Amino acid sequence: MKTILEAMKWRYSTNKFDTNKKLSTEQLTELLEAMTLAPSSYGLQPWKFIVVTNPEVRAKLQAAGYGQEKITEASHLIVFAVEKNIDDKLVDTYIQSVSDTRSVPVENLKGYEDMIKGAIARQTNEQRIEWATRQAYIALGVLVVSAAQMEIDVGPMEGFDPKKFDEILGLEKLGLESKVVAAVGFRSPDDPSIQYRKVRFPKEQVVVEIK
Amino acid sequence: MKTILEAMKWRYSTNKFDTNKKLSTEQLTELLEAMTLAPSSYGLQPWKFIVVTNPEVRAKLQAAGYGQEKITEASHLIVFAVEKNIDDKLVDTYIQSVSDTRSVPVENLKGYEDMIKGAIARQTNEQRIEWATRQAYIALGVLVVSAAQMEIDVGPMEGFDPKKFDEILGLEKLGLESKVVAAVGFRSPDDPSIQYRKVRFPKEQVVVEIK
Repeated sequence: MKTILEAMKWRYSTNKFDTNKKLSTEQLTELLEAMTLAPSSYGLQPWKFIVVTNPEVRAKLQAAGYGQEKITEASHLIVFAVEKNIDDKLVDTYIQSVSDTRSVPVENLKGYEDMIKGAIARQTNEQRIEWATRQAYIALGVLVVSAAQMEIDVGPMEGFDPKKFDEILGLEKLGLESKVVAAVGFRSPDDPSIQYRKVRFPKEQVVVEIK
Repeated sequence: MKTILEAMKWRYSTNKFDTNKKLSTEQLTELLEAMTLAPSSYGLQPWKFIVVTNPEVRAKLQAAGYGQEKITEASHLIVFAVEKNIDDKLVDTYIQSVSDTRSVPVENLKGYEDMIKGAIARQTNEQRIEWATRQAYIALGVLVVSAAQMEIDVGPMEGFDPKKFDEILGLEKLGLESKVVAAVGFRSPDDPSIQYRKVRFPKEQVVVEIK
């Protein structure tokens, strides 16, 4: 198994996928489980992971994604969506889940519940959605590392029309908004990006130590 | 070495750290390198990682962080900051870095440069900062997984006064804003959270498959 650093050096933002290589069910399940285990603010998990394999739907998404080939060519497309309504109902669902998982009466979680509801009440709806979006990016980070360690390629994407994606995927009626997308699969040996050296600012420029 | 899933199940948002256990220089270097290797939009890396070990500074940050013990008790505190000015100058620096790393003349990267500058020009400064912040959360996700696999604990934090953090850390004059914080170290056996079962919505509630 690759170490984290080996995996992070092996990975790159894949643009051209091998159309013949598909993730196994086990690989997909493992990636989704890792993403599900990603941390989020208060543990609220304000995200949904939309896994698109349907080729007709993928073709429509491609048209709404500046024609990027990876949208149709990768083994799987994962759309990270967030809840449009970050409200007391979501908190209630979460608190119930805490209660069930830990066998604690809901009443005993009242302090925690009020704290989360208070934090939500202090934000505008737009701020709440942005807050949820940041959490989804944590899950994206978890996907990238997890996949790399399994020698699975990921091409993250922000270049797409989110409104059209929502429409094509029927997210509006699920109360969701698409925020970021990952093409997941296996690099094609023809991907010209494979030969490019990874570009990173030197550590001295990125890390500030306050000793 | 733990698999990703074992690592993700082992980890939890640590609140109480063992004050006697410190990360080795090698461990810190490895974590920072993994974070540095995190992907970002266009590869721009609009982040800085502020590693705070100074105890006096940590005490001040604790006061600006609702008194959370992990701010002073964890081995290291990492503040994720983003550039306040996401501008052509940042793109120029990045393009120069691409040019140097890949031995490609800057002129040959003009198309890429213009594309990034165009994407930036279409956003308000507030949107740019938010965009940068989302990228920083990818790096946070990378830190969480990387640390877990090395059996290092992380307590991510959004509950702090970012303006005060910026002031205490002198970030303003560096053109930076603090966005999210991670306490990094080793769990104390006394952390009551250790015994709590991890709460996650079942996969069926989080994953939507479009086949």
